[in-house]
Amino acid sequence: MTQGTVAIFGLGAMGSGMAGALLRAGLVTHGFDVNADAVARFRAAGGADGTLEEVADTLDAVVVVVVNAAQTEDVLFGANGIAGKLAKGTVVVACATVPPEFARDMAARCAALGLEYLDAPVSGGTIRAAEGTLSILASGSAAAFDRARPALEAMAERVFELGDTVGAGSSMKAVNQMLVGIHIAAMAEAMTFGMTQGVEPDQFLEVISQCAGTSWALESRGPHVRDGDYTPLSAVDIWPKDLGIVMDIAKSAKFGAPITAAALQQWLAASGSGLGREDDAAVAKVYARNAGITLPGDA
Amino acid sequence: MTQGTVAIFGLGAMGSGMAGALLRAGLVTHGFDVNADAVARFRAAGGADGTLEEVADTLDAVVVVVVNAAQTEDVLFGANGIAGKLAKGTVVVACATVPPEFARDMAARCAALGLEYLDAPVSGGTIRAAEGTLSILASGSAAAFDRARPALEAMAERVFELGDTVGAGSSMKAVNQMLVGIHIAAMAEAMTFGMTQGVEPDQFLEVISQCAGTSWALESRGPHVRDGDYTPLSAVDIWPKDLGIVMDIAKSAKFGAPITAAALQQWLAASGSGLGREDDAAVAKVYARNAGITLPGDA
Repeated sequence: MTQGTVAIFGLGAMGSGMAGALLRAGLVTHGFDVNADAVARFRAAGGADGTLEEVADTLDAVVVVVVNAAQTEDVLFGANGIAGKLAKGTVVVACATVPPEFARDMAARCAALGLEYLDAPVSGGTIRAAEGTLSILASGSAAAFDRARPALEAMAERVFELGDTVGAGSSMKAVNQMLVGIHIAAMAEAMTFGMTQGVEPDQFLEVISQCAGTSWALESRGPHVRDGDYTPLSAVDIWPKDLGIVMDIAKSAKFGAPITAAALQQWLAASGSGLGREDDAAVAKVYARNAGITLPGDA
Repeated sequence: MTQGTVAIFGLGAMGSGMAGALLRAGLVTHGFDVNADAVARFRAAGGADGTLEEVADTLDAVVVVVVNAAQTEDVLFGANGIAGKLAKGTVVVACATVPPEFARDMAARCAALGLEYLDAPVSGGTIRAAEGTLSILASGSAAAFDRARPALEAMAERVFELGDTVGAGSSMKAVNQMLVGIHIAAMAEAMTFGMTQGVEPDQFLEVISQCAGTSWALESRGPHVRDGDYTPLSAVDIWPKDLGIVMDIAKSAKFGAPITAAALQQWLAASGSGLGREDDAAVAKVYARNAGITLPGDA
């Protein structure tokens, strides 16, 4: 019994992992990307053949895994946009972090073509994407959930069904990113502050992870600083982008977000000083540079 | 077999809970406070009789549980200071959140009188104090730890022994408070931001506590906002004090702490607008007021 047929658009760090999870769950999975090598690798790993035009009528859902709102719009409605090629009733599962208003706009344009739309940003990073254990923060119609559910469950450990209003998923994602973006930078601020007082990173992690000061972000990213390992599991450049989205939404709502704003400045300093493609734990290097201290792994 | 004899100075919200835990663990426990009613209540609950002068020779340790450095210094070396009345070898266990430099000064002055000193700030709040399940972040000599250990273990679930240098405990406490003070305010910022986007507090807690945006502080304080319950388990006014200590230490170290500084402004706004004695989750009211939104429990 088939789990259904899906196409995934975007085979980058997140998308290729999610595509693999779809395959393992038994879905017929087509993978598309502007990078022909990525497509060839995915087909070698079990991805289904055929152009979008050839397979469009077979698709239950298309999963769009790109970097931002502009790329999402381009995939759907750009010069080679896919929305006009899909069969009525196909569900567009949009996974990028985008403003809620943008999600509502995309959903309306998809509805005009007879397509369903799930506002479905994901959380969890590349490792959990590859494991099929993401969290998905999704909102949309019951019909959209019903048809996309096999794909959602293949990609995620937890699917939060946040109601039938498109935008609710993106709102919750913005809230989550606000907190993660603050918490990673706060971990870096506290760890380097501790170093000025003789608290070494390994002792910091051992103690604080068991005290009231802990956070998921601290336990996830702190070890990268302790080990001097900035292999980009999640890159610095995600945060100027995502906290920028959060601040844009906040400005529209006339909501003052001073802690988010302070954290964003640290992320901009990290990116501006050339750390954009390093792991986001590298925001600690901004603090270390400013305080004249040497992090683990530094010369 | 006795667990030893201790005196606790300060029978406020934290100290009375810790005194009860000492009693339950079988230690002979004397309780002292400027508030005679608090002393009487503690004696009725099993606290030992006698003036400090009468019992000083029997004490293994004195536990000083007051609000800040000034009160700690007053208890030890003020007009009625206890340090000069204690027998040589008695351990002073100093539990307030203080600057590391202050702890080193107190230790030196105690050493000049032949007293041992443990720099031993506590973490966990009044409920865990009453349960005897605090975390204690302690540093001092092996002799001090040996003699104070029964008392420490009675009061704490976890005693972090951070080496023999007085000040290490206070440094780690400052690091912890920096993070908790940021995380509570960030929880409030994110929860109220979410409300402007249609994310209700109960949904916020249900989802974010299972996502990357979670923190100990969010899971501890978020429910207070959701329930509109600001019974002061830990008061707003702790944070202008503790983050003030953190910023003073940071300034001395020429360490820029922009996220801590932004969080401190929110705590000052909370205290300045009359919320100082409410539960620290009430920092959410600053955000709600500024954004024109209504929190649960508001009229």
